[in-house]
Amino acid sequence: MSDTLTTGPHLLERLQWRYATKQFDSSKKIPADVWSSLETSLVLTPSSFGLQPWRFYIVTDDATKQKLLPVTWNQRQVVDCSHHVIFAAKKTVTVDDVDRLIDATVSTRGLPKGALDPYRGMMVGFVNNPGLDAVAWASKQAYIALGQFMASCALLGVDACPMEGIVHNKYDQILGIEADGYAAVVAASAGYRSATDKYATMAKIRYPASEIIKHVTA
Amino acid sequence: MSDTLTTGPHLLERLQWRYATKQFDSSKKIPADVWSSLETSLVLTPSSFGLQPWRFYIVTDDATKQKLLPVTWNQRQVVDCSHHVIFAAKKTVTVDDVDRLIDATVSTRGLPKGALDPYRGMMVGFVNNPGLDAVAWASKQAYIALGQFMASCALLGVDACPMEGIVHNKYDQILGIEADGYAAVVAASAGYRSATDKYATMAKIRYPASEIIKHVTA
Repeated sequence: MSDTLTTGPHLLERLQWRYATKQFDSSKKIPADVWSSLETSLVLTPSSFGLQPWRFYIVTDDATKQKLLPVTWNQRQVVDCSHHVIFAAKKTVTVDDVDRLIDATVSTRGLPKGALDPYRGMMVGFVNNPGLDAVAWASKQAYIALGQFMASCALLGVDACPMEGIVHNKYDQILGIEADGYAAVVAASAGYRSATDKYATMAKIRYPASEIIKHVTA
Repeated sequence: MSDTLTTGPHLLERLQWRYATKQFDSSKKIPADVWSSLETSLVLTPSSFGLQPWRFYIVTDDATKQKLLPVTWNQRQVVDCSHHVIFAAKKTVTVDDVDRLIDATVSTRGLPKGALDPYRGMMVGFVNNPGLDAVAWASKQAYIALGQFMASCALLGVDACPMEGIVHNKYDQILGIEADGYAAVVAASAGYRSATDKYATMAKIRYPASEIIKHVTA
């Protein structure tokens, strides 16, 4: 059970505060305790069936950041941020992945072996469906993580910039993602905005709720 | 600028509190002020280029929920929840979408006409790329919204259950999504957990950070 809740106004104030940071202050690093919370928020991201078909690669050292710069369309955020996060999707999803989850669940919850057979069967049907595009499915799950990460950063006062504009296969090679059986999907630089980033104070552009939210009734 | 920040422990307490709710208490409805904050959090979701290629369909009435039940694999959440949210992606992304964003930006920020021509050109190149799978790209953006929505619900003490298991084309027809030029991508029921939902107290299953988070250094 929860002790306290976040208020709606506080949540919205934080989401209004965030923006796609263009210039990071490279002298400012995310403190270890704050980063630890963000890392745990990544781990806690919900996923379809709970299968967690992802890995998160974290880059903080200058040498690796410099290698990523040219394959990030020279967007400076990658080098000036504190932590550069790459959201990677598992390239295959098989019965082994199902059993990994089942085993973890049985063990964590102290269930008798076989207690989850119906659930396992449903997931096996899902992963064995010839129509499944595993990497597309896993990539969508990685985007859930991106969404939760962006919100988490905003709540903790950490600036971030999501980036689809990365050369995916180069990221896969440079960071050893491909060798792990994963594929880079999207990235986000996290850190602290520079005092000179003019984008920080610009009005946010969002379409009015009346245009993008539809209440459907019978 | 922010007044106060959320603490890491509070954020993690909320993310630990949430779970994929199996049974909602159908007598409990999300209060209007809380729902309003959640709706605004949807509007504030970040998207690639800021193009917001999505719509969010909200269902609260019993008759429509009943129509959705059989095309949601009879998962009771859709009828017992307070608000059922459908995340829909725009089926086409064209220069018109770019100009809609450019016009909104020029108008909101009071910029001279043409000030954003380079930015516009970059986006036009993106949408005109023959390799672009528009609906796949827009669907990923919708998953960012799902991630932010799930986190926002948790922070405000609202239970939710994300659902990929929907019959997408039936949703599109029943809710008029197809006629709007969008496609249902994923859904989430939101409301309040039933006191009898045994899943509420089960230990969350997450792989250890050591297995899914990799720190890469040169």
